[in-house]
Amino acid sequence: MFQIESLGIPKVKSPLQLSTVRGDHIFNYVKEDDKLVYDLSLDTYNKCLTNKEEPLCMEKAGPRQHIYFEPGKTTAAIVTCGGLCPGINNVIRGIVMALHYFYGVPRILGIPYGYEGLNPAKGHGFVELTPEKVKDIHQFGGTFLGSSRGAQDVSVMVDTLVDNRIDILFTIGGDGTLKGANAIGEEIEKRGLDISVVGIPKTIDNDIDIIDKSFGFETAFDVASAILRDAHNEASGAHNGMSIIKLMGRDSGFIAAAATLAMPVVNFALIPEMDFDLYGENGFFEQLKKRLEAKRHAVIVVAEGAGQHLFDRKKVKTDASGNIKHEDIGVYLKEKIGEYFKDIFPMTIKYIDPSYIIRSAPANSGDSVLCNQLAYQAVHGAMSGKTKFVVGKVNNKYVYLPISAVTQKRKKVDLESEFWFSVLQSTGQPFLM
Amino acid sequence: MFQIESLGIPKVKSPLQLSTVRGDHIFNYVKEDDKLVYDLSLDTYNKCLTNKEEPLCMEKAGPRQHIYFEPGKTTAAIVTCGGLCPGINNVIRGIVMALHYFYGVPRILGIPYGYEGLNPAKGHGFVELTPEKVKDIHQFGGTFLGSSRGAQDVSVMVDTLVDNRIDILFTIGGDGTLKGANAIGEEIEKRGLDISVVGIPKTIDNDIDIIDKSFGFETAFDVASAILRDAHNEASGAHNGMSIIKLMGRDSGFIAAAATLAMPVVNFALIPEMDFDLYGENGFFEQLKKRLEAKRHAVIVVAEGAGQHLFDRKKVKTDASGNIKHEDIGVYLKEKIGEYFKDIFPMTIKYIDPSYIIRSAPANSGDSVLCNQLAYQAVHGAMSGKTKFVVGKVNNKYVYLPISAVTQKRKKVDLESEFWFSVLQSTGQPFLM
Amino acid sequence: MFQIESLGIPKVKSPLQLSTVRGDHIFNYVKEDDKLVYDLSLDTYNKCLTNKEEPLCMEKAGPRQHIYFEPGKTTAAIVTCGGLCPGINNVIRGIVMALHYFYGVPRILGIPYGYEGLNPAKGHGFVELTPEKVKDIHQFGGTFLGSSRGAQDVSVMVDTLVDNRIDILFTIGGDGTLKGANAIGEEIEKRGLDISVVGIPKTIDNDIDIIDKSFGFETAFDVASAILRDAHNEASGAHNGMSIIKLMGRDSGFIAAAATLAMPVVNFALIPEMDFDLYGENGFFEQLKKRLEAKRHAVIVVAEGAGQHLFDRKKVKTDASGNIKHEDIGVYLKEKIGEYFKDIFPMTIKYIDPSYIIRSAPANSGDSVLCNQLAYQAVHGAMSGKTKFVVGKVNNKYVYLPISAVTQKRKKVDLESEFWFSVLQSTGQPFLM
Amino acid sequence: MFQIESLGIPKVKSPLQLSTVRGDHIFNYVKEDDKLVYDLSLDTYNKCLTNKEEPLCMEKAGPRQHIYFEPGKTTAAIVTCGGLCPGINNVIRGIVMALHYFYGVPRILGIPYGYEGLNPAKGHGFVELTPEKVKDIHQFGGTFLGSSRGAQDVSVMVDTLVDNRIDILFTIGGDGTLKGANAIGEEIEKRGLDISVVGIPKTIDNDIDIIDKSFGFETAFDVASAILRDAHNEASGAHNGMSIIKLMGRDSGFIAAAATLAMPVVNFALIPEMDFDLYGENGFFEQLKKRLEAKRHAVIVVAEGAGQHLFDRKKVKTDASGNIKHEDIGVYLKEKIGEYFKDIFPMTIKYIDPSYIIRSAPANSGDSVLCNQLAYQAVHGAMSGKTKFVVGKVNNKYVYLPISAVTQKRKKVDLESEFWFSVLQSTGQPFLM
Repeated sequence: MFQIESLGIPKVKSPLQLSTVRGDHIFNYVKEDDKLVYDLSLDTYNKCLTNKEEPLCMEKAGPRQHIYFEPGKTTAAIVTCGGLCPGINNVIRGIVMALHYFYGVPRILGIPYGYEGLNPAKGHGFVELTPEKVKDIHQFGGTFLGSSRGAQDVSVMVDTLVDNRIDILFTIGGDGTLKGANAIGEEIEKRGLDISVVGIPKTIDNDIDIIDKSFGFETAFDVASAILRDAHNEASGAHNGMSIIKLMGRDSGFIAAAATLAMPVVNFALIPEMDFDLYGENGFFEQLKKRLEAKRHAVIVVAEGAGQHLFDRKKVKTDASGNIKHEDIGVYLKEKIGEYFKDIFPMTIKYIDPSYIIRSAPANSGDSVLCNQLAYQAVHGAMSGKTKFVVGKVNNKYVYLPISAVTQKRKKVDLESEFWFSVLQSTGQPFLM
Repeated sequence: MFQIESLGIPKVKSPLQLSTVRGDHIFNYVKEDDKLVYDLSLDTYNKCLTNKEEPLCMEKAGPRQHIYFEPGKTTAAIVTCGGLCPGINNVIRGIVMALHYFYGVPRILGIPYGYEGLNPAKGHGFVELTPEKVKDIHQFGGTFLGSSRGAQDVSVMVDTLVDNRIDILFTIGGDGTLKGANAIGEEIEKRGLDISVVGIPKTIDNDIDIIDKSFGFETAFDVASAILRDAHNEASGAHNGMSIIKLMGRDSGFIAAAATLAMPVVNFALIPEMDFDLYGENGFFEQLKKRLEAKRHAVIVVAEGAGQHLFDRKKVKTDASGNIKHEDIGVYLKEKIGEYFKDIFPMTIKYIDPSYIIRSAPANSGDSVLCNQLAYQAVHGAMSGKTKFVVGKVNNKYVYLPISAVTQKRKKVDLESEFWFSVLQSTGQPFLM
Repeated sequence: MFQIESLGIPKVKSPLQLSTVRGDHIFNYVKEDDKLVYDLSLDTYNKCLTNKEEPLCMEKAGPRQHIYFEPGKTTAAIVTCGGLCPGINNVIRGIVMALHYFYGVPRILGIPYGYEGLNPAKGHGFVELTPEKVKDIHQFGGTFLGSSRGAQDVSVMVDTLVDNRIDILFTIGGDGTLKGANAIGEEIEKRGLDISVVGIPKTIDNDIDIIDKSFGFETAFDVASAILRDAHNEASGAHNGMSIIKLMGRDSGFIAAAATLAMPVVNFALIPEMDFDLYGENGFFEQLKKRLEAKRHAVIVVAEGAGQHLFDRKKVKTDASGNIKHEDIGVYLKEKIGEYFKDIFPMTIKYIDPSYIIRSAPANSGDSVLCNQLAYQAVHGAMSGKTKFVVGKVNNKYVYLPISAVTQKRKKVDLESEFWFSVLQSTGQPFLM
Repeated sequence: MFQIESLGIPKVKSPLQLSTVRGDHIFNYVKEDDKLVYDLSLDTYNKCLTNKEEPLCMEKAGPRQHIYFEPGKTTAAIVTCGGLCPGINNVIRGIVMALHYFYGVPRILGIPYGYEGLNPAKGHGFVELTPEKVKDIHQFGGTFLGSSRGAQDVSVMVDTLVDNRIDILFTIGGDGTLKGANAIGEEIEKRGLDISVVGIPKTIDNDIDIIDKSFGFETAFDVASAILRDAHNEASGAHNGMSIIKLMGRDSGFIAAAATLAMPVVNFALIPEMDFDLYGENGFFEQLKKRLEAKRHAVIVVAEGAGQHLFDRKKVKTDASGNIKHEDIGVYLKEKIGEYFKDIFPMTIKYIDPSYIIRSAPANSGDSVLCNQLAYQAVHGAMSGKTKFVVGKVNNKYVYLPISAVTQKRKKVDLESEFWFSVLQSTGQPFLM
């Protein structure tokens, strides 16, 4: 069981006027024992039946009949951390609207520039958030609150929460941010405080574990796929023309794979999860040569974290968030392909690196719906006194999960999944190179 | 159990070079007993446990190690029926590519203008489909093959399949089309023929039962939501300005609801599933009046099938597909709102009916991925000899379902679901009017 | 000569630090005697030579070295009237930025809801406009200030200007608005007041006389052309499929013609300027029949004001702005085509009326550049004390023109111009039907 | 006078059924003496009058009553050279349609991969172009024919024209391509051949002299401006966040300037035409520091050819077309800004280089109209026997100009023009840095 922690027993009657019976055309409060099975395979099911054990379950997201915080006296705060991702503003807007209109929470603070904003020494101050201020921000990419990378002293951040009478902290960020949120939650617990900490997982790479997909991911491959269409124009516009497009994906190839599937003009997709050789009879370059000889152009998508096994790994660097800084596989491939083919036949290579263009785009409609629903569910969970939890979609249903459950490892493309198989079917590239 | 019928025992070795073990980085053939549970709630699990019965299961989609048709001797045909929907061309393309490149099927026929094309009396002929011919069509809306509404004589259509040595018929269409496909499949069975009939459910309204969503739906509310943004400009550009946008949704309000959630500028969403009064203290018009007095503009989304209870239902008409022709609720509302407010205060009403603009758009990236995967799975299922089945996504996994299972009733927006609750949270409209 | 009137001799030194010499890489103030020839044909030149007369000239737009209003003491106001048009917000933003940053004008008032906002009886109040308030509005369609149709009492409006110490009134609107602005200017003159009245012509139909094109027009046919692409999908998706798209163009066919040229899938473009018969050997229907027989589908674009000669003109109606309300040619054609062909062969007709979707869209980049430059030029002209003038682009150069010069008649598509000839070349339709 | 050369006296009656009188609603043939004045300023006009000399004139483009080539016996060829540019396919399509439908030219050859395709040694062959083949290509970016850089032997190319009985060669390309076309025309003249050579100027940089603008330019800054919007999200999303966007513009800053004006979120635009210092009290870095202190973020647009004076110019390199290869000013600025500010305050810099994404996009609507009209006019001019000419828009009118007239120098942004002044007004940057 993915068990969510709670600040205490919810005793306040929810101001939402919902129902508890089916048939009255009014949404029902979600009950604490509404659980959803995690693993859908009949095998697992049967194993549980045999062993007489309960299957792994998740808590259904939604408004509870009794909540923990007295809405009229509650202060909430929102912070956005890490790199940009489409939909951040939609989530901010959704949280503000839900707190204000559904629950009547009177005071909502925006924390500027990520966790830095919880460190008074940085001098960023707060922004008072109201429906009027956020009503149009969903139409813009970026983050209305600003962001920053890297950690701050947990104790200082909790002091700030206390000093500003903040009851609920909504954190929008990736793996590092969520771990930070958990640490804040643990410090709160240690001090015996009544502050809820909530995470809305934000990773354009889609690499948060367990959940179906994270917000912004769909927009990312939507924007990317138009770029692939154009990259194909570049490739086919020249004799033996090649386009190399480096897409985001530090440790996982979800964007590269999904964009490839969405715009089936790609001939090779290279992702961090796969091993591949450049040289040799079955190597990438020989495959590429065959493709060029057959069609006179080729489109190559490479995730930024792919092919790191090709570099000397002794000199590893990290960024302010502690993420490993990768060698530039795109530039490397461009050089090596150029070297490889220069004595074989004349060719041209166009190298395209659109990362900032993708991550700063406004959310598309699918993501907008997702962001709105994540924001609403996060608010319902927080108001009911749950803490150290994230909201996410699993098996196409909204659930609450402990932060700790989704940060144990990063999700990766399963090379034996139907998803990756679809990609290979689309590109025509072999399983192994 | 959703049990799929089969033409016979698959004995031909699949030409796909897949694996049967985990860990070799090669996709595994799907086994016939790979099943997925349909209902995720722990309650259902416990009920099964108590009653010692197997839960309702679905067959996992994917390539089988042994197939039924000898690929090199197989002829496949594709037909598209009913109204346009984003993604039809992507599905056509995906099927052609999968048949040609994965299985080496040498002959693929395009049936022009829907089921009419299976009636020789119509004189439409066939189109030979090749990768070269379909390689760019995914970038266009509409249907490369043309479509038509309405039924044709089942016996004549089966004769045509036989006369042209067609082994597999892929039908892309909605409820009526799928029922037609099932009837063809039954006639084939009656005659003892070896022809597989496959359905790829196509309904822009998203009202095919059981499956998570149908292709084209996401594009539909994507296109619609940009129109809502502009409609909001129209409304707010005038004092007491109102925009009424009629969106598709003959019997269900999925597009109206999702577009509303994607572009949260909508104040009222009216869908076929809900009852509502225009007049009276809690009626729609009084709610609308309050909104105008507060903000001086209002955006109203109405699904085409909404509010039919307001009309005299004696004079029901139907179209060529047998669908009930609805009274025009959009025009009706425009008139009645005008009458209601004309003595209260000056106002302007803009009426927007974008249906054809939405359904003829090219698929967005999310739908493109979905279409590609549906096409691939349909081909794998058909090659393995399954028949009278559809391919769809349920609980975020690809499965095969009997056609008959998804055509028993049309899916509707559950007024007590979290989805509809999210919409109401976004608009701020009351549960009941 | 198109002579602009002036409030008096400009004596205040411009706060812009410009130059008066070439070669210093600093823009030069425009001199009052910088004129541009209106008619470019060599014939006209030779005629002037023979007759020893000066050719018709226009005043070059731009900042003057001496201005009329003391910037620090100036109050400006902006009003937007009539129907929506892409780019209104860009013009508002540009005016505010130019007044604030270039000249340091401290007080800028937004007049809500068109000329109504200058009538205190309507109770709309004013909006204080600042760079902060308008900095993002260029990304939205519609009008930030709201609009209304119809005239208000000129004397009352001038009283409002006086009561609120407004020195410059920027009016953004079409033919009727500009005539209203001129009337305000004349009343000001009669009363001997020091108030400048400026017009920025706004007509999505592009029918303001003399100027090359009005802002919003390019966006209009940009949005329309994507709809034509989709309409083509609808037409070609059915056997003998036809799409009829009604585009804006009350008295002129510029949008219909330009969209047709931009998306060359259109087979017939019908505009108000042309006469055409429906029936008879050379009539439209016979041409349409030939097209269907050849290609089995047809796309028909019709401007809303086309074909009015087909209706009984006795019962003419007008809207609040005094514009004649046209009979609905789109609906009429749909009916008559249906009647004509129903006994000839089966066919389907899709009717598309996207007007609000087009006019409420945000400005595209070409229009954004145009709007910015129009706004800047309007501010320079107004600050220099000119009045009753519009700013526009003629022969690809920015000029000032008297309002009265552009409101004498509406511009129409010249049926013997190369523009219309290009459209006919693109559609393949005959000159006369 | 910009005098166009001709192969001989046109004696063939045009198959276009046009008119020669006004008032019949049929387009009139353009007469050879229809000239347009080039310089619009009244000063120039008066100077001519005083000196009794004819002003500089251009030949009006359009169909002539008598043409030179017998349409039914004519072979035309189309070649596209140099880098991609939005609209190439629209021009190809327009030429094919005009030759086929207007004049009935039976044989149209596509030359693959630029001038290389006219060199048989390269072995590329030809593509037969028909309306069917090109009817959809306007919806795609890139070039349907492929392209290449660099020159080929003129004599060999003329041999190819002769060997393949090509009567008209349409060349679509930039400065180098046009010079090549002129050389081909001169060789033809030397040999006394009857082959017309036409240029349709293609330069995404918009730097062809004399003409108002080249096709693709507007799409370029349209695509770029959306990227600037997103770059602004990146900048404002971080404390002291900066975005540097490098846009195309080897020798001129038109794209950088127009995109800046179209998306007024840019604070600094740096173009090749301007001199600027990085350091010092009025230098760029000090201006940038002031901006950051005031607003905490900055958006910097830099044309690829800007700031070359900052590099050591001894080691100049050139590409295959002979264009000078610039040092990477974008990367350079990123480094130097980082160095400058690292001891002043913490900041982040995002560097964006979208070039291929821009040039491979499909043409927007404005460019589509332009491309269609350029193509039509090019065909009319070629059929009438003119040679060594380009078609272009000057003062908003279509004219024919000698190739030699537009290749003498490249157009640059005039730093004292109203266009550049508008850009500076929009950014707020000083004239000189």
